[in-house]
Amino acid sequence: MTPTNQNQPFSFELLAQDGNARAGIFHTPHGDIATPIFAPVGTQATVKALTPLQLEELGASLVLSNTYHLFLRPGDELVAEMGGLHQFMQWKGPILTDSGGFQVFSLAGIRKIDADGASFKSHIDGSSRRLTPEISIKVQENLGADIIMAFDECAPPYDREYNISAMRRTHAWAERCLQAKTRTDQALFGIVQGGIFPDMREESARIIGSYNFPGTAIGGLSVGESKSEMHAILDVLHPILPADRPRYLMGVGSPEDLVNGVARGVDIFDCVLPTRLARHQGVMTRHGRLNILNAAHAHDENPIDRECTCYTCQHFSRAYLRHLVVAKEMLVNTLLSIHNIHTLLQLVREMRQAILDHRFSAFSSQFLAEYSLPKTIKEQA
Amino acid sequence: MTPTNQNQPFSFELLAQDGNARAGIFHTPHGDIATPIFAPVGTQATVKALTPLQLEELGASLVLSNTYHLFLRPGDELVAEMGGLHQFMQWKGPILTDSGGFQVFSLAGIRKIDADGASFKSHIDGSSRRLTPEISIKVQENLGADIIMAFDECAPPYDREYNISAMRRTHAWAERCLQAKTRTDQALFGIVQGGIFPDMREESARIIGSYNFPGTAIGGLSVGESKSEMHAILDVLHPILPADRPRYLMGVGSPEDLVNGVARGVDIFDCVLPTRLARHQGVMTRHGRLNILNAAHAHDENPIDRECTCYTCQHFSRAYLRHLVVAKEMLVNTLLSIHNIHTLLQLVREMRQAILDHRFSAFSSQFLAEYSLPKTIKEQA
Repeated sequence: MTPTNQNQPFSFELLAQDGNARAGIFHTPHGDIATPIFAPVGTQATVKALTPLQLEELGASLVLSNTYHLFLRPGDELVAEMGGLHQFMQWKGPILTDSGGFQVFSLAGIRKIDADGASFKSHIDGSSRRLTPEISIKVQENLGADIIMAFDECAPPYDREYNISAMRRTHAWAERCLQAKTRTDQALFGIVQGGIFPDMREESARIIGSYNFPGTAIGGLSVGESKSEMHAILDVLHPILPADRPRYLMGVGSPEDLVNGVARGVDIFDCVLPTRLARHQGVMTRHGRLNILNAAHAHDENPIDRECTCYTCQHFSRAYLRHLVVAKEMLVNTLLSIHNIHTLLQLVREMRQAILDHRFSAFSSQFLAEYSLPKTIKEQA
Repeated sequence: MTPTNQNQPFSFELLAQDGNARAGIFHTPHGDIATPIFAPVGTQATVKALTPLQLEELGASLVLSNTYHLFLRPGDELVAEMGGLHQFMQWKGPILTDSGGFQVFSLAGIRKIDADGASFKSHIDGSSRRLTPEISIKVQENLGADIIMAFDECAPPYDREYNISAMRRTHAWAERCLQAKTRTDQALFGIVQGGIFPDMREESARIIGSYNFPGTAIGGLSVGESKSEMHAILDVLHPILPADRPRYLMGVGSPEDLVNGVARGVDIFDCVLPTRLARHQGVMTRHGRLNILNAAHAHDENPIDRECTCYTCQHFSRAYLRHLVVAKEMLVNTLLSIHNIHTLLQLVREMRQAILDHRFSAFSSQFLAEYSLPKTIKEQA
């Protein structure tokens, strides 16, 4: 009997640990998630420019959707009426929804947070809206994802005072989310906050860990702190977070961050980066980023990456991709999204195998040595 | 031995004729085209929003690309350097390129036509460019499509004087194109002009027919004349055009036009309509057009068409498609393009079977009786 038995139909099998890196399987009602995993983001119930069939062909398992966006449009009740998010967007595999908290707190100037929740103006029509822990859970129950998130408050990483109050509020709201939850076919994850402050992260991990969530999310990272600060926090959390539950590092998704995150015990990642970069001609490779608009690619009949097995690299030249960008053809969003998502999914698959083979340390050292940290898109042009 | 033997590797087999409707096979170096056929348009070497794999899954055989656009960007020499259009855009089946003539003559105000050709300003950068019959053939040989077009002049349909000179020029240019052609693996089609004037169309068909082109294109229709005028011209042309060669009605592609065209002996159609409509929320169905943005679809869990077997209709509700339109998600362009192209390809497949079964007349009568002529997109909203 696994310790997550009380959270059936969810259970996490930890198959191997190599250093702090973990390989496992998270069982959900819509299928198994082999971890570590990267989840492409379908903000508005669609991973931009990709059909569910294309995502399936990429080997995606978990897909994320955003509660804030779907709450506002088309509305969680409409999604429920249409049979829930899996049916609506036709993603048959596992889905994760965030709580809406992060988006609301990003609406600087048009939101007001109180002990009970947050009021804000819709970015779509300016209407007054409100999210509380109870509303967030209700919305997420209407959406019907397999993994749902507790409503939390994310503070600027270096503001200690703010982080203390945001963390306490996050803990209080986590308890309210547990109380509010009614569906048994959704796994509610608690979220650890605490900015860049190790003592607060430790406290938050202990408290959230004590609530017996079937998984733990790490919030408030990749929001402005340095890479080494992020790594330090992950190192603080590793020994405290429940080892028998999956750990989800929210909003993180560059190749180097995935490798550094897995090395520090993270099992689940999500990020808009691969699809957002694709819409700005940015290409992720195993050796760093490439701007396909660069004139050097105009006559280049090579694929993005000769060793890549994605549909885009198996078929199209850099010259063609560059032509599509210059001609403003929307197909390029699809082709670069396929490549970028493939790059991340292939990376997590390789990391998983390396962990199972107990050679993760060598794998990650070699990967990071061969990888050039990305410049901004502008710098590469 | 077929009469098109001198045009090997091209040959046209006429398998059945039912009334004036024809079912055949046009053999090309990149595969057979079962006729009647509709060719989706990939103006800039991409059928907008669709991967070649998606086109293949739709059962597309022939794809059209535009010489004018590729001449300007990325340039036909670059395409040749990259191995030609099939390799560049990764469409392994037959490709047809137009001559560039129609686009140039559409550039009212920034082009000048003389007996030798046409000078114009690029719509991209305003640079001065020139196309002549010889340049058009050279560009099309660089692009490397299976079917290429003679450089022609398309006049406004009701201007008799203009049509006389444009027709004569078209005939003279057709001869120059035949002279200029050097590749033996491309089928050059001549183009019949003559506006809405039956006597001129008859003359043009006799002259172009006498040049022994492996196929005949009908230009200058669907450019402002009425449907009945278009039908009358097709009726005039039918007994004159070489019966043993395919006939291509350029730029025509609504469901009712396909049925009326096939009834009058047309074998090949192309049009931007299915993909252009898709980018404006317009949906083609067997019963007329549907505007997916209509509020009536907001809570509709039905697909566009319950009887449609396309990927879009097999998976997605009207409510979801409408949500994607409202949320400005680019996936909707892909999903509606899939549906619209499927609708036309399914229609030509059914017409072909009806001709082979000698029941085309009943098929077309029933189709047209059940079909509502489209209103403009605005009227339906």
